[in-house]
Amino acid sequence: MSQGKARVISTELLSNSEAEWKRLVKTTYIGQDGVTRTWEHAERTTRPKGSDFDGVSVIAILEKDTGREILLEKQYRPPLDKICIELPAGLVDKGETAEQAAVRELKEETGYVAQALTTSPIMFNDPGFCNTNFKVVEVSVDMSLPENQNLKPELEENEFIEVFHVKLADLWDECVKWEAQGYALDARLASFAKGIQIAKKYGL
Amino acid sequence: MSQGKARVISTELLSNSEAEWKRLVKTTYIGQDGVTRTWEHAERTTRPKGSDFDGVSVIAILEKDTGREILLEKQYRPPLDKICIELPAGLVDKGETAEQAAVRELKEETGYVAQALTTSPIMFNDPGFCNTNFKVVEVSVDMSLPENQNLKPELEENEFIEVFHVKLADLWDECVKWEAQGYALDARLASFAKGIQIAKKYGL
Repeated sequence: MSQGKARVISTELLSNSEAEWKRLVKTTYIGQDGVTRTWEHAERTTRPKGSDFDGVSVIAILEKDTGREILLEKQYRPPLDKICIELPAGLVDKGETAEQAAVRELKEETGYVAQALTTSPIMFNDPGFCNTNFKVVEVSVDMSLPENQNLKPELEENEFIEVFHVKLADLWDECVKWEAQGYALDARLASFAKGIQIAKKYGL
Repeated sequence: MSQGKARVISTELLSNSEAEWKRLVKTTYIGQDGVTRTWEHAERTTRPKGSDFDGVSVIAILEKDTGREILLEKQYRPPLDKICIELPAGLVDKGETAEQAAVRELKEETGYVAQALTTSPIMFNDPGFCNTNFKVVEVSVDMSLPENQNLKPELEENEFIEVFHVKLADLWDECVKWEAQGYALDARLASFAKGIQIAKKYGL
């Protein structure tokens, strides 16, 4: 298997009829002034019927002797043609709760076995652009479990994920460094990091 | 002018040829295993030529006698058919810096006159779904300026934005309450709030 740098070869416009995973939608709506207008947005085609959310992000904080560290991933993302730094995450399967999706995705992507602790409200990624959303699930990881000492991820054949962790308290400074090194930052991770930075700045 | 609740009337699939503001793209790329694959994603059509970012989010913290408060907006979002709670934000105009966009958008949407303090790295909203991104600009607001005592927003004719502020330290609890009240939460705001909550939880 050759190991090279992932990269884009070409791009083309994609019609809704050919698209399998995404679609473009035009909404006709009445604004609060009573005027009828239209709005364009993008959607996933994968949200399970009856579900009000697409996926989950996972906050897994590892309690190490040296302090708390947060579990992160590096993954090549074709839309950006960059390696992106993100929280573990994934789309929810039909019939699955957010907590089940979080525990499953964490095991598949990182090999860590965890227990769900808290689940956030639904968060919408870019409300003027798309309707895509997710819930943030905080999980606890028992480092003494054999599975968590000998990690066995279960990645898809087209998934290449590098798992790593950094000190939670340093997360914002690390984000700034990562961008300087040429990585792309996932906004859900970077906004979370910014919240930690602001909390520290103002002694909240 | 009738004042009613904004709501969706109908939705339809939108082809790229008809779409003005968004488009669907198919990327052919070589993965790090050397295998050629494709990936679908959505993009804005509005990113200024030569710009590497689409827009800005604004963190405006007001220093009140009762403590620090963060400036927020409620805005009906047709893709969600909900009123969404968000940071002030907007797309960047051609030739404008992130700081200029932030100060301009804040004045237009809220009436507040501010000065840019810090600018974040680029943050990507949903890297497997789209290439859309933004920078977070922290601004300072001098409450003693006459313009900031007698606010005059400059909204577009199809923009209806309610401006308000909440205690920065309470932001996460407020997010949880807002979802219970039926509002949608913007992920950039809610992830930021989660960071504050986690920093407080772990005494960072």
